[in-house]
Amino acid sequence: MTYSLLQTINSPADLRRLPRSELVRLASELRAFVLDSVSRSKVGGHLGSNLGAVELTVALHYVFNTPQDRLVWDVGHQTYPHKVLTGRREQMNLLRQFGGISGFPRRDESEYDTFGTGHSSTSISAAHGMAMAAKLKGEDRKAVAIIGDGSMTAGMAFEALNNAGVSHGGLLGDVLVILNDNDMSISPPVGALNKYLARLMSGSIYSAAREGAKSVLKNTPLYEFARRFEEHTKGMVVPGTIFEEFGFNYVGPIDGHDLDSLIPTLENLRDKKGPQFLHVVTKKGQGYKLAEADPVKYHAASGVFDPAIGFVKSTTPAKTTFTQVFGEWLCDMAEQDKRLVGITPAMREGSGMVEFHKRFPTRYHDVGIAEQHAVTFAAGLACEGLKPVVAIYSTFLQRAYDQMVHDVALQNLPVVFALDRAGLVGADGATHAGNYDIAYTRCIPKMAVLTPADENECRQALFTAFQHDGPSTVRYPRGAGAGVPIQKEMAALAWGKGEIRRSSSRAQRAGGSNNSGAAGVQGQARVAILAFGTVLYPALVAGESLDATVVNMRFVKPLDHELVAEIARTHDALVTVEEGCVMGGAGSAVLESLMAAGLNVPVLQLGLPDEFIEHGDAGKLMALCGLDADGIEQAILKRFGARPALVRPAANQ
Amino acid sequence: MTYSLLQTINSPADLRRLPRSELVRLASELRAFVLDSVSRSKVGGHLGSNLGAVELTVALHYVFNTPQDRLVWDVGHQTYPHKVLTGRREQMNLLRQFGGISGFPRRDESEYDTFGTGHSSTSISAAHGMAMAAKLKGEDRKAVAIIGDGSMTAGMAFEALNNAGVSHGGLLGDVLVILNDNDMSISPPVGALNKYLARLMSGSIYSAAREGAKSVLKNTPLYEFARRFEEHTKGMVVPGTIFEEFGFNYVGPIDGHDLDSLIPTLENLRDKKGPQFLHVVTKKGQGYKLAEADPVKYHAASGVFDPAIGFVKSTTPAKTTFTQVFGEWLCDMAEQDKRLVGITPAMREGSGMVEFHKRFPTRYHDVGIAEQHAVTFAAGLACEGLKPVVAIYSTFLQRAYDQMVHDVALQNLPVVFALDRAGLVGADGATHAGNYDIAYTRCIPKMAVLTPADENECRQALFTAFQHDGPSTVRYPRGAGAGVPIQKEMAALAWGKGEIRRSSSRAQRAGGSNNSGAAGVQGQARVAILAFGTVLYPALVAGESLDATVVNMRFVKPLDHELVAEIARTHDALVTVEEGCVMGGAGSAVLESLMAAGLNVPVLQLGLPDEFIEHGDAGKLMALCGLDADGIEQAILKRFGARPALVRPAANQ
Repeated sequence: MTYSLLQTINSPADLRRLPRSELVRLASELRAFVLDSVSRSKVGGHLGSNLGAVELTVALHYVFNTPQDRLVWDVGHQTYPHKVLTGRREQMNLLRQFGGISGFPRRDESEYDTFGTGHSSTSISAAHGMAMAAKLKGEDRKAVAIIGDGSMTAGMAFEALNNAGVSHGGLLGDVLVILNDNDMSISPPVGALNKYLARLMSGSIYSAAREGAKSVLKNTPLYEFARRFEEHTKGMVVPGTIFEEFGFNYVGPIDGHDLDSLIPTLENLRDKKGPQFLHVVTKKGQGYKLAEADPVKYHAASGVFDPAIGFVKSTTPAKTTFTQVFGEWLCDMAEQDKRLVGITPAMREGSGMVEFHKRFPTRYHDVGIAEQHAVTFAAGLACEGLKPVVAIYSTFLQRAYDQMVHDVALQNLPVVFALDRAGLVGADGATHAGNYDIAYTRCIPKMAVLTPADENECRQALFTAFQHDGPSTVRYPRGAGAGVPIQKEMAALAWGKGEIRRSSSRAQRAGGSNNSGAAGVQGQARVAILAFGTVLYPALVAGESLDATVVNMRFVKPLDHELVAEIARTHDALVTVEEGCVMGGAGSAVLESLMAAGLNVPVLQLGLPDEFIEHGDAGKLMALCGLDADGIEQAILKRFGARPALVRPAANQ
Repeated sequence: MTYSLLQTINSPADLRRLPRSELVRLASELRAFVLDSVSRSKVGGHLGSNLGAVELTVALHYVFNTPQDRLVWDVGHQTYPHKVLTGRREQMNLLRQFGGISGFPRRDESEYDTFGTGHSSTSISAAHGMAMAAKLKGEDRKAVAIIGDGSMTAGMAFEALNNAGVSHGGLLGDVLVILNDNDMSISPPVGALNKYLARLMSGSIYSAAREGAKSVLKNTPLYEFARRFEEHTKGMVVPGTIFEEFGFNYVGPIDGHDLDSLIPTLENLRDKKGPQFLHVVTKKGQGYKLAEADPVKYHAASGVFDPAIGFVKSTTPAKTTFTQVFGEWLCDMAEQDKRLVGITPAMREGSGMVEFHKRFPTRYHDVGIAEQHAVTFAAGLACEGLKPVVAIYSTFLQRAYDQMVHDVALQNLPVVFALDRAGLVGADGATHAGNYDIAYTRCIPKMAVLTPADENECRQALFTAFQHDGPSTVRYPRGAGAGVPIQKEMAALAWGKGEIRRSSSRAQRAGGSNNSGAAGVQGQARVAILAFGTVLYPALVAGESLDATVVNMRFVKPLDHELVAEIARTHDALVTVEEGCVMGGAGSAVLESLMAAGLNVPVLQLGLPDEFIEHGDAGKLMALCGLDADGIEQAILKRFGARPALVRPAANQ
């Protein structure tokens, strides 16, 4: 394809100069370009949602005066067509790569990206804020939220509808909510709302007839009766109009791939005041047969794929991921203990629960994009003696923090939080990074926090947490670990105990002697590295090189205070390593422990810096943060002494 | 009143033995008893919500087989009648007092308290969990969630409705949701849902007619048509049935003070399978004229009140609270800067925003009990150049943690979070304690965290945060502070800078010398106390007694690293004090700073322990946690040396 028309569009202003008749061709080129971009990408990208939003994107930029009018894309994994049309066509080849553009909208990337997203269901709140701001400032502009049916299941979308549909201090915002209904989130849809939307859609054929009836009656004394009758007719053919109850003018459903429906409808709505609601029906993966046929698989292309044949199977055998380790453990544990119930907020695939769902359908609960409910629902199950396991990404647990504190921990209920994607996540970037969970979970009383170091330990840690009669989190990162073979038989880890994985020859020699303080470190420093989680493995490499002691801490909470004290007494300097924020993290737990024990030993805290970290290759980012073996070694040398002094044993050994 | 009938009810089983005809009298005694209990209480309690729930409570325990059937009370500030009927009548005299029963349901207090609450909108999730557990275990019981109309505005209630109304793996829970619609949360109701409920209520007179029509048609060929017609009729007189769209069988609205309506309706619903929804209309403060007339004022009785005359005005002039300081600052700031917008999630009174609402109606936004939306709405406003101030309790910000990270901080938007009730809250207890905010906010990149020490500094800190071009939180506790006079003119605090409030005579003498390490502390320890927030004042008293240096740190983030380093170099031991959890708190920020600077000085961290702290008098609880002047002094002496050595200056001074 040559993209001859698309190449002339460098901004929405160019688009708006096109005659309407050209738009179908433009959409066709745009769809092909997006498909091509994702297929060329080394890091993949979201596919189905973007292909489904092509016509809607063209229509929105054609009808609305962007960026003066504000488009807020919910979640944002449907914004590739938007990025292409807003001056970022050439940058699509570096999409989601380090230094390249983000896979999500970002305010610092373009003035057309009015609100950064990544997590779902924020768009109506943000658009309502923008609409209210326009009213307060006396500016005439529209704020448009484009939100999928999956995102609609999250409570905050309802909070926003409830708020945006009524006036405040006499002001009513000019906000347009577009429900992009593709009958999908990432997993297939669940919940009552979805059934409701399906009924709305099935009633759409009656819309035309209704319109006809109304025009006949207009300006007759029967009009008011007709208006009310229309409401009831809607109630009959379109069963109910929840969105009108919330104060929105509901229009739809219309075909979201038909520009001849989209454009006049959007033009109509553009000229209306107050809260408007447009229900658009699209198909995830539209125009790409493979994606249309399997929208779950083609939600995101994470590997190599060829548009002609779909995903290309890698010839190198894939390493087992932590997600898979969790999924297998969940099935095995469920077989052993019938009290186990598995819960996911709409991440069946991402959390590795497909097999569990198949084998234990009554004990599998996909609650929709509803993290708050997921956690309190788990608490309710636990009250009745069941043992819920909530599988959730670290970044999404932020949505259910209060429920974790208030409904689970405060009541000391045995809920296991299986925290996937803890730490850096790579191409998804800062919006999805699980950097804060150690800090925000360890401060909760009763909450245990486990940081397994490898695949097998992850399985055993999950088992250990499951046996624990109280709340616990087990955190593990995206992707694969050190490749440690998995022991099928489950054995509980010693509760709150770490293990020494490597002993410095100098430390062994020194026995129980007191440390000599910071001043004594130069030259002969006996260093111990305390590692939390999978960073144990680079720490072991660094430890070997430096002849340092290396400890696999396993537990952030309860912390192994005895071991920390013993190590502090036998070493001159400690180094904590974690794939999480340094501020308030596991290293700080070690500091607290040392201070409480009256042990003064210098500690170097290695972890993620106090900044939002860009998208890019996860391995490279870890190296940039100094969390690979070389980074750990260099940081220790820089802080505690020159290399030769550290690695060369003293003469008298 | 003698309570002669009520005295015979020691459990719901006793209640269920009464003839129906006695229940009106019982309800009357129960109402009087609750009113009497709250009026006798030294610490007050929730009043209006409890008086409004008397008949409903009687009816529920009469109809359902409690505790076998599960009652889950949303928020829980309507459970006094429930407590009285479930064996805790005699304990009502110690309600909300240390060692006495809680003002909220608690699992460890009674088997009738099936789920602990305190924060709103959790009940449907928990009840759905219990109902699903019953199905999985093959037990036949009902789970009943009793939820107010205010709590219904929170997103998680919708998440739960969306999930509970449909089957999971073929299982459909026997859950009954009772909407206790009193047209009130704490503040007057807001939002579209409330308007919707009002319309439902106005349609209630048609219910009886509808019932009649149905019975005539039953078992005729017209029945199916009639059933559908009934739906549309509902659509006409009762405008829409959102709850039916969610898969619930909707019944109501009925009069929640009429036992003759309540009991047969509940009996009917008890015998039905699957998700049921009962809409009950009650009056907050029912049966107590003063509370009926002013439900906002009588939501909770926090002071002395006499049932005959209402609240008794205290003769001693009340101290200015931090809430008032905030409210006044907000008005003054709004007058100076028209970009300011004030946002509250349904806590106008509690957050001190009544005056602001009156004076700046278009810039005041009560978004309902919707913390998530509140924060992202603020982010949307900030995108447009406005300066939102989100007034929120520390404990409730837990509900919007993800929005704070993802929508505000990540985009570096200038939103001020005014965190009221930071620290211990007294009679409300662990569910409302704001113990964790320092830990969970300071780990967020870009987020500034200010801890003003007194009333005037609170005003200036709010001003400082408001001037800052990025996100910030200003935390302050419940109630009054040291009583420092407020300087009307606003002046920004030096950003990220603390101030030395008292210098130890020994430290001054010692100048810039290096510290001598832990071993050198005995006898002549030069101690510095680093205080964060209002604990500065007890710290000053302790510092005076011990001749210690006392620093008002003011900022947790950015921390004053220079000052910390200077103090560390001139003292032998540091003490950090904060009204927040030690784990990951401000003291840990000091430890991180010291370690990063290579400064090894012993630090004693004082703050809230790693446990959930009971309800009770806030001052006493602070003392129990060792955070009063005496506690601080004793902890320092215990850790760093005997009293005489510390307080007596060396001979050569």
